Amino acid sequence: MTVRADLNISLDGFASTTDQTPENPMGEDWFRLVEAYAATRTMRRRVFGDESGAGTTGVDEKYAAAYFTGVGAEIMGAGMFGLHAHPDDPDWRGWWGEEPPFHVPVFVLTHRPRPDLEMRGGTTFHFVDLSPKDALARAQEAAGDADVRIGGGVRTVRAFLAEGLVDQLHVGIAPILLGRGLRLWDDLRGLESDYAVRSETAESGTIHVTFRRR
Amino acid sequence: MTVRADLNISLDGFASTTDQTPENPMGEDWFRLVEAYAATRTMRRRVFGDESGAGTTGVDEKYAAAYFTGVGAEIMGAGMFGLHAHPDDPDWRGWWGEEPPFHVPVFVLTHRPRPDLEMRGGTTFHFVDLSPKDALARAQEAAGDADVRIGGGVRTVRAFLAEGLVDQLHVGIAPILLGRGLRLWDDLRGLESDYAVRSETAESGTIHVTFRRR
Repeated sequence: MTVRADLNISLDGFASTTDQTPENPMGEDWFRLVEAYAATRTMRRRVFGDESGAGTTGVDEKYAAAYFTGVGAEIMGAGMFGLHAHPDDPDWRGWWGEEPPFHVPVFVLTHRPRPDLEMRGGTTFHFVDLSPKDALARAQEAAGDADVRIGGGVRTVRAFLAEGLVDQLHVGIAPILLGRGLRLWDDLRGLESDYAVRSETAESGTIHVTFRRR
Repeated sequence: MTVRADLNISLDGFASTTDQTPENPMGEDWFRLVEAYAATRTMRRRVFGDESGAGTTGVDEKYAAAYFTGVGAEIMGAGMFGLHAHPDDPDWRGWWGEEPPFHVPVFVLTHRPRPDLEMRGGTTFHFVDLSPKDALARAQEAAGDADVRIGGGVRTVRAFLAEGLVDQLHVGIAPILLGRGLRLWDDLRGLESDYAVRSETAESGTIHVTFRRR
């Protein structure tokens, strides 16, 4: 029943990037942010379909495995589904492929709802025009006893954090300076006062920081 | 002969703070930034004159002890000496007390030089109107075979970083979000490409990140 969020950010706090192109919708900077995570055994298998068992197995892997454990529903912003890049295409099915890595109901926040989209592997996208609080209530209903993950992007996570709706925030901080993009931490002064904060460093150099509600 | 810099910043990257008052020249936020460092045995002795041996002795202490080891000269911005708060007072002797914790020549960068100021314990303040590069040459001459520390504030450290003059940067990241102040990382995109970056977490929750020139 925990509400969780999980983001990769740079040492200078940028979580989402601004160098996207049609050919590279996530941007080069984004790739560098998630590089260590993408190298883990769990992410290689779950996101990239690599069933060989290859991938890192250290501290990053511990967080990657936890990422997929116990989640019963996901909430994401319209941008993370790709709606901003395809606003007028009613046939757009997101850029997560025909079998997205979620395997749970996913609530996509948008002011322009569209019909549900049922994908392979248990992922159904629901497009909802709701406040963070109301979207969370819908997702919690769908998740039952399992956790709800606020998947991203950064604006969405920040909105849920600002309203005090997140129980556990994990950030993987890549030891790089991007100098551009969207900052996770803007307007969150004093957030730590409601949380216990723990940090751990991975072999890759990634700094894992976890905020858990006291 | 290493050029070192050392700063305490918040998780959201703020190194210097903006809530200063005449009664509290460093500001409340600044105290929270340095709290774990100030609790170490070395800082209690060297900065606060506590000879009892009290203080923490863990990972933070390791960095605090290193802070004072091998430094032959220091460079600081005018603000760190307090010139901005006392621009027209020729008798102002800085807010570091009569026996400042440096014990080496200190070069204070200012466009309004004043006579040298010799304090107790080996600290002499030299007020110089020089570029970062030229100030560094002066400090290196004074330091001989020892290191030069770029002591702060954040604008000064950033200027030396931007010109590629720093061999080793250590930041102690307090797990707090200040949401205001001066950011260390602005305009330093890609800095890591010239450095090896290592991170370590202290018992206090402080994340120590060290950039060492490759």
